Amino acid sequence: MSRPTKSDRGSETRELILVTAERLFAEHGVEAVSNRQVSEAAGQSNNSAVSYHFGTKEDLVLAIVRRHYEPVERRRTEMLAEITGSPDLRDWMSCLVRPITEHLASLGSPSWYARFLAQVTTHPSWRELVSKEAVSARSMQQTIEGTFRLVPRLPEEVLQERSYMGRLLLVHMCAERERALHEGTARPRSTWESTAAGLVDALVGVWLAPVTARR
Amino acid sequence: MSRPTKSDRGSETRELILVTAERLFAEHGVEAVSNRQVSEAAGQSNNSAVSYHFGTKEDLVLAIVRRHYEPVERRRTEMLAEITGSPDLRDWMSCLVRPITEHLASLGSPSWYARFLAQVTTHPSWRELVSKEAVSARSMQQTIEGTFRLVPRLPEEVLQERSYMGRLLLVHMCAERERALHEGTARPRSTWESTAAGLVDALVGVWLAPVTARR
Repeated sequence: MSRPTKSDRGSETRELILVTAERLFAEHGVEAVSNRQVSEAAGQSNNSAVSYHFGTKEDLVLAIVRRHYEPVERRRTEMLAEITGSPDLRDWMSCLVRPITEHLASLGSPSWYARFLAQVTTHPSWRELVSKEAVSARSMQQTIEGTFRLVPRLPEEVLQERSYMGRLLLVHMCAERERALHEGTARPRSTWESTAAGLVDALVGVWLAPVTARR
Repeated sequence: MSRPTKSDRGSETRELILVTAERLFAEHGVEAVSNRQVSEAAGQSNNSAVSYHFGTKEDLVLAIVRRHYEPVERRRTEMLAEITGSPDLRDWMSCLVRPITEHLASLGSPSWYARFLAQVTTHPSWRELVSKEAVSARSMQQTIEGTFRLVPRLPEEVLQERSYMGRLLLVHMCAERERALHEGTARPRSTWESTAAGLVDALVGVWLAPVTARR
């Protein structure tokens, strides 16, 4: 084995910082944790290691998101190819949900990514940053377009609202499952696959629910 | 006007602490704020004012919840009397949602209670404390029973999951609306009544969604 080069050590440090920050943000929220605390918890003697390797806290949060992005995007692209033109909303909800639940399953336990996303989603400014990133993915765009083709004509505010409800359910149900797995309780569902099935059913229910006439 | 008695001043102090704690917890999360910080922000020269008036942080959180409890419980009891035996799930969802949205509307803006609940709900131990309190209310029990009579036969884990999804949507959509109102943006809905209508529609959708056969 050759000696690790300076650039190997740099990328190991980056990785260590990413993993540490993800866990701390998942446990305490993004606002509650400083770059300095992340550097310390990652065992860096230099308190400005985060700034050196990533820049601002925004850059760090985006780097955590992008780390999980590629496998999710790849899986969703595969799944979309299998359902081209499907008239079944369930297929499109599956393309939304399963790339994420399968990725989370592949991480083993404890993972922190779902709880990290739940924390990020609870604060409007962080949520906007991350959802802009997520929605810009080509596979996500196609999934949204496929969904909108199949839902009944909805007033714009209802469309926005149900998109938001879908994100809420997806993020928080995955976070709850990840936490239950970590803590050794089996609630609310016993496998990632049954979590996905429950989410797909519920999202189809939300999208197809009749809209009460407005007063 | 007579001079305020010592007991008037005590109850004013309690009220001031409750309002201050609710806002701080809503903004930063329950874990991130200490009793000492609440005492200081409430302008108490004695740093242990919270402990003196309420006891532990748990007692303080429950006192905040109970402060909003009575008008919600009263309104729900009235609404239940109007729909006795209704076969329409929408009526029962309305009994779940509207006592809360109407109470939030009555608070004016800025209110903090919905965001406080969203923060409390993000942490499992605080969530359990608060949901035990909420579910124990007689009107809530009747609403749950009425709902369960009208939903199709569901496996126990799906029943648990959909109850949890319903709470998630209720709490987070109200928090989002409260925040939007506070920040002067109109998203995602323009009134508390339309927020309630959107929630009732979505909850009916979730409860009546067909369940995918499990593999």
